[in-house]
This record gives sequence, C-alpha cells and structure tokens, in this order.
Amino acid sequence: MLHLAAPTRSSWVHEATADLETLLLDHAHCEKKAAGTALNLMFRYSDLPWLQRPLSELAREELEHFELVVSMLEQRGFTFRKITAGKYGARLMAAVRKGEPERLLDTLICCALIEARSCERMKLLAERLTESGEAELGEFYRSLLASEARHHTLYTRLAAQRFSREVVNARLAELAAHEAEVLAELAALDQPMRMHS
Amino acid sequence: MLHLAAPTRSSWVHEATADLETLLLDHAHCEKKAAGTALNLMFRYSDLPWLQRPLSELAREELEHFELVVSMLEQRGFTFRKITAGKYGARLMAAVRKGEPERLLDTLICCALIEARSCERMKLLAERLTESGEAELGEFYRSLLASEARHHTLYTRLAAQRFSREVVNARLAELAAHEAEVLAELAALDQPMRMHS
Repeated sequence: MLHLAAPTRSSWVHEATADLETLLLDHAHCEKKAAGTALNLMFRYSDLPWLQRPLSELAREELEHFELVVSMLEQRGFTFRKITAGKYGARLMAAVRKGEPERLLDTLICCALIEARSCERMKLLAERLTESGEAELGEFYRSLLASEARHHTLYTRLAAQRFSREVVNARLAELAAHEAEVLAELAALDQPMRMHS
Repeated sequence: MLHLAAPTRSSWVHEATADLETLLLDHAHCEKKAAGTALNLMFRYSDLPWLQRPLSELAREELEHFELVVSMLEQRGFTFRKITAGKYGARLMAAVRKGEPERLLDTLICCALIEARSCERMKLLAERLTESGEAELGEFYRSLLASEARHHTLYTRLAAQRFSREVVNARLAELAAHEAEVLAELAALDQPMRMHS
C-alpha cells in the first residue's frame, strides 16, 4: 500500500530509539522541511489551481506536527536546535528530472515515498518505544502514522490528477527502487542516525 | 497602534473594490507569501528556538487564510491563478540590512509593517464593501482584521525578544517612514491595483 521497494533494515529502530534527542530533533526538522517542500510546490506551480488547497492543508498539518515534536523535545528537557541534515532527501530528489511535466511527476512521487518511509518507520518506532517502556512517545508515533499514510496517498492522488495511472505507477516503481537503493547506500556509508538514515 | 507613518490614500479602496477578482487573487498570493516568509525565517534562524513555534503557528494561520480567500474566489466563479506580484514587498524589503543581527531585526519589522498595512487596508475594504452591498465579502475582511493586528504585534514582540525596546522602536519608526514612501512612489508610478499598491 505504501509502495516501498524494501523494508527498513532491522538495526535502524534500535539506533533510533537509543538516542531520542537526535531522533526528535531530526524528526522536527523533517516536519518543517515537509511543510517547506509543499509550500515550494505551491509557489513553483502557481498556475495549477488544483494543487494549491491540498498542499496548503498538508503544509498546515506538517507545521502542526513540527510544533508537537518540539513540545515532545521540550517535555524531555531538550531544546530545538540545528543539526546536520541527513543525505536522504537530497539523494532521493537527485532522481527528479529537470524538464516539465516530468519534474512535477517525479517531485510528487518522491514526496509520496518520503511520506511512505516515514509512515513505515514511525510504525517501527511506535512498537519499539512501547516495548521499551516509552509508552507516551510510542503513542505519539502511533498517532502520526495515519497522517503519514494519508499524505502518501495525497501525493500519489495529485500525481494521478495530472498523469495517467499507468505513468504514475511505472514511475512510482522506478523511484521506489531508487529510494531503497539510497537507504542501502547510506547504511553502508555509516552516516549518523536520522529519521531517514 | 499599528505604527504606520501614513494612512492609505483615499483612492485605493475605490480602485480595489472596483476589481474584486484582482483584489482576491492578489490577496490569496499575499497570504501564501506571508506563510512562505514565516517559513523562510524558521529555516534561516533554525538556531533560534524561540522563533520557531510562533512563526509556525503564524504560517499555519496564513495558509488557512489563503484557503479561505481561494474559497471566496471560487464562490464568485473565479479560479486561483498566477498574477504579476506588486512591487511593494521587494521595495520594502530592500531596506533590510545585510549583516546579522540587523537583518533579523529589519526583517521582523518589515513583516510587522506589512501586517499593519494589511490590517489598515482590510478595515477600509470591510467598510467600503459593506456600504456598496457586498456584505458577505465585507464581513470576511472584518473577520481577518484581528489576525492581521495580532500578527503585527507578534512580529514586534519577537523583535523585542532579541533587541531592546528602544532599538526596536527606533528602527520601527525609520522603516515605517520607508514603507509610507514606498507606497507613495508606487502610487506615482501608476502600477496595477494590488493589496499593497
């Protein structure tokens, strides 16, 4: 349903839950970046009215999640601060083709895949955190799951509003394979833990 | 209370209400740009945690207003589309100093002044639209007034969190004079009508 080509490696959830400050910090930045990406699409495609409202609603929801994650950080005595971004987003988006309308199709599909991966990983986090006695944070991740899945569907639905189902599905399969490769490459590079490392 | 150096010229509200499609279109773009500016500040000043939540809440509200204005457009049979931006924003922001922390101070104050001018003009629109039988749209602008005033206060309050009241007030007076000059210059240039023409 989430169109992912490969599951997250089993070690990730252990690394992620071993450093909750970094996990929450990176998660906060991810939510802010997700809102920024939606808003950038609204500006770049100002001539596409059907993109505007759904992306505006999505951006508002991402910002609401950003605020929630910042609250979770603060409840644990941490403060929101800058951290180096993971390389996942830039490497994934490197596959976006330059010309239109391919650029629009690829960007919407990459956004759909990021939401799908977040959904998959938040489910792993919810389960692991609950098991390890972090019930509140586990519940928090469980509460975000449905939104991530909904955002995944929204991005694929937007793509299907402009492109045929066949074109969308074919490119979704290609970019999902690319997304899984990016994660495998990053794991081999031994990068610092991030939501999408 | 809004710190504006000069009132809007009397002709503006007549020009604005004579072309409701352009008014609503430009207003929609203004709300989207206001959200974009808040989000840009959140990214540029990722190292200032106290800016993050208030600007995130503000961006969400601007996006909500964007969606409302698009609904108003659609109710009247118009469609959201690209229009050329007015020159107000760029000319106002040209006064922002390049180095930090002056850049932060000036940007916050310019944002405060844009909100103030929007508030002043929406009051004029609410009155004029109600007089001319456009009660629903008049009521809509009346409903947005309070938010614009609140956003003005938020931006000046954020400035005062980092700079002394004296520094903020001195720069606010200078930039308010600049803002009034920008509007006078644009009026002399006979630009197309915009929310801030």
